[in-house]
Amino acid sequence: MIRVHHLNNSRSQRVLWLLEETGTPYEVVRYERDKKTMLAPKALRRVHPLGKSPIVEDDGKTFAETGLIVDYLVERFATDLAPARDSELYWRYKYWLHYAEGSLMPPLLLKLVVDRLGLLAYPARPFVKSQLKLHLDFLESELSDAPWFLGERFSAAGDGQRLLEPRETTPTPVISNRPATLAPALVCEMSNVATPPPMGAKPT
Amino acid sequence: MIRVHHLNNSRSQRVLWLLEETGTPYEVVRYERDKKTMLAPKALRRVHPLGKSPIVEDDGKTFAETGLIVDYLVERFATDLAPARDSELYWRYKYWLHYAEGSLMPPLLLKLVVDRLGLLAYPARPFVKSQLKLHLDFLESELSDAPWFLGERFSAAGDGQRLLEPRETTPTPVISNRPATLAPALVCEMSNVATPPPMGAKPT
Repeated sequence: MIRVHHLNNSRSQRVLWLLEETGTPYEVVRYERDKKTMLAPKALRRVHPLGKSPIVEDDGKTFAETGLIVDYLVERFATDLAPARDSELYWRYKYWLHYAEGSLMPPLLLKLVVDRLGLLAYPARPFVKSQLKLHLDFLESELSDAPWFLGERFSAAGDGQRLLEPRETTPTPVISNRPATLAPALVCEMSNVATPPPMGAKPT
Repeated sequence: MIRVHHLNNSRSQRVLWLLEETGTPYEVVRYERDKKTMLAPKALRRVHPLGKSPIVEDDGKTFAETGLIVDYLVERFATDLAPARDSELYWRYKYWLHYAEGSLMPPLLLKLVVDRLGLLAYPARPFVKSQLKLHLDFLESELSDAPWFLGERFSAAGDGQRLLEPRETTPTPVISNRPATLAPALVCEMSNVATPPPMGAKPT
């Protein structure tokens, strides 16, 4: 059975969502961030040398990197959550898969560090703010004409990640002001489709 | 013909390397970072809304995200630079493809910002330093028993990126102290294999 090494407030929420969405049985091993440093516990390094989450074990193999894990799980358990390789949408699907980690995540990490530095990081704030605005405007524009990242087609590439946002945190004004980015999450919330699991859930 | 929108000191060097390595004809459109802010010029936003580099045009389509571009170019022009989909090495190849952007790039960006903040970012330095050490130790350990990221097999996933390093900059002590990480680059330098093109090269 698939085993997810899950760290609170980490990208592994996206993996849990995908497993729930596809009804794939799995078990969860929980790890908690250090409350002061917010770093992952060293125990995670026994599973993978970088000690980051998510890490997934399946069929005797260990997988790290969120993008790769989504790719792997879709290929193995949920081929209907990705367009066929010869489809027009295939490279667009791949784009969003890479975008989430390659482009959107770095400014989010930067914001985390800059926020923790407080006033000291004052000179870096305009840069961080402009980068986040750039990405949020881009997402809003991409989503304003269609419900999902691939238009009418729901997929694992970006939609799952977005669905989790409002359950994790109260939407911040920066998100609330972008209705297209927020909308599918609210739909999900109301219709109870693709409900993310409670953290640490055992397979049903 | 493939068109690469190339920004100096950006990840598009990896794309140029891949095109040179595979002998694929291409043309380059050059962009220069603002010398003061180090940001990309707004002209890049006319090619893709995020205005980041690399961006590649091929066959009437526009591709962004380094990981996706490598994936696309390999699939289209250089299938021998990736293991077959049913091979044991396939997911390992995918791992390095996602790792470069998903895990290695964020602390490098963080270092850039923290270095520019100078003394102000002093409290963040131990975190950034420990993250970079974690990744460099990991790379050194992964490469210490074999010449390439997939063992004996050269691939597009991580090896190309590594080859460029010593041509771009004089290796810093942090790299020089890790001989396995550096070694293939030196081999490349001496044997003139996989020579990266001069920036802005026209197709030969």
